[in-house]
Amino acid sequence: MNGNLRFITYLIFVKQLKSKKMTTQQVANRLVELCRTGQIHQAQVELYADDISCNEPEYAPTKSAKGKEAVMEKGKQFASMIEERHGGSFSDPQVCGRYFSVAMVLDATFKGMGRQVLEEICVYEVKDGKIVFEQFYY
Amino acid sequence: MNGNLRFITYLIFVKQLKSKKMTTQQVANRLVELCRTGQIHQAQVELYADDISCNEPEYAPTKSAKGKEAVMEKGKQFASMIEERHGGSFSDPQVCGRYFSVAMVLDATFKGMGRQVLEEICVYEVKDGKIVFEQFYY
Repeated sequence: MNGNLRFITYLIFVKQLKSKKMTTQQVANRLVELCRTGQIHQAQVELYADDISCNEPEYAPTKSAKGKEAVMEKGKQFASMIEERHGGSFSDPQVCGRYFSVAMVLDATFKGMGRQVLEEICVYEVKDGKIVFEQFYY
Repeated sequence: MNGNLRFITYLIFVKQLKSKKMTTQQVANRLVELCRTGQIHQAQVELYADDISCNEPEYAPTKSAKGKEAVMEKGKQFASMIEERHGGSFSDPQVCGRYFSVAMVLDATFKGMGRQVLEEICVYEVKDGKIVFEQFYY
């Protein structure tokens, strides 16, 4: 009986743990952790909300997009433009309320555009433990 | 002769120093330094470009504005809404290329709206040593 009770308590604990939504800080840390190890696709699968909006500057080579599928497709398009990645970095996230920002540097040779160093401030909005909005400044 | 030469060299040095535009990092540091000591008006006078654009969220109590005068007027309007400031903070700036971001917290009682804690990510764009664009996320 004591053993059963302990097991039930354990199951309830696991269920609560699973249903617990990540905080902005947790989402931010996980995004940076995955990006730093090159798992950008995994970051999108794991952290993007279905109705995410992604805003790009007007002059961006890839256009703004809405919806997880469209935004992930945009990510693929951008990746396909890179001929060679020479280096880059992701800062620790700066978290405030439901928003956080990350400073990103990408040193790469782009197809037909030569080598360029992209310096970006990326802003993310988190709702219910998922990223619902991202805006890139570069 | 030697003395004259040294004086001319000094004058050229001072001229170069004066004409040197601040880098994004220098503008960011100065903004945070002034804001932390409550000199927000001085920060605007010193660091805003004449044609600055300020973007607010749609639901903001003060609307987006363009031009140094209009943006500073907006700042005054916002300040006049505060009944009592209980606390707040400005993070170190996160700088990348010509953009930087600051995490800002304001704990204040607003006239007719009670006490609220405002948590913002503020993004700034720097051009020729001046802030030409600011966007607030909260």
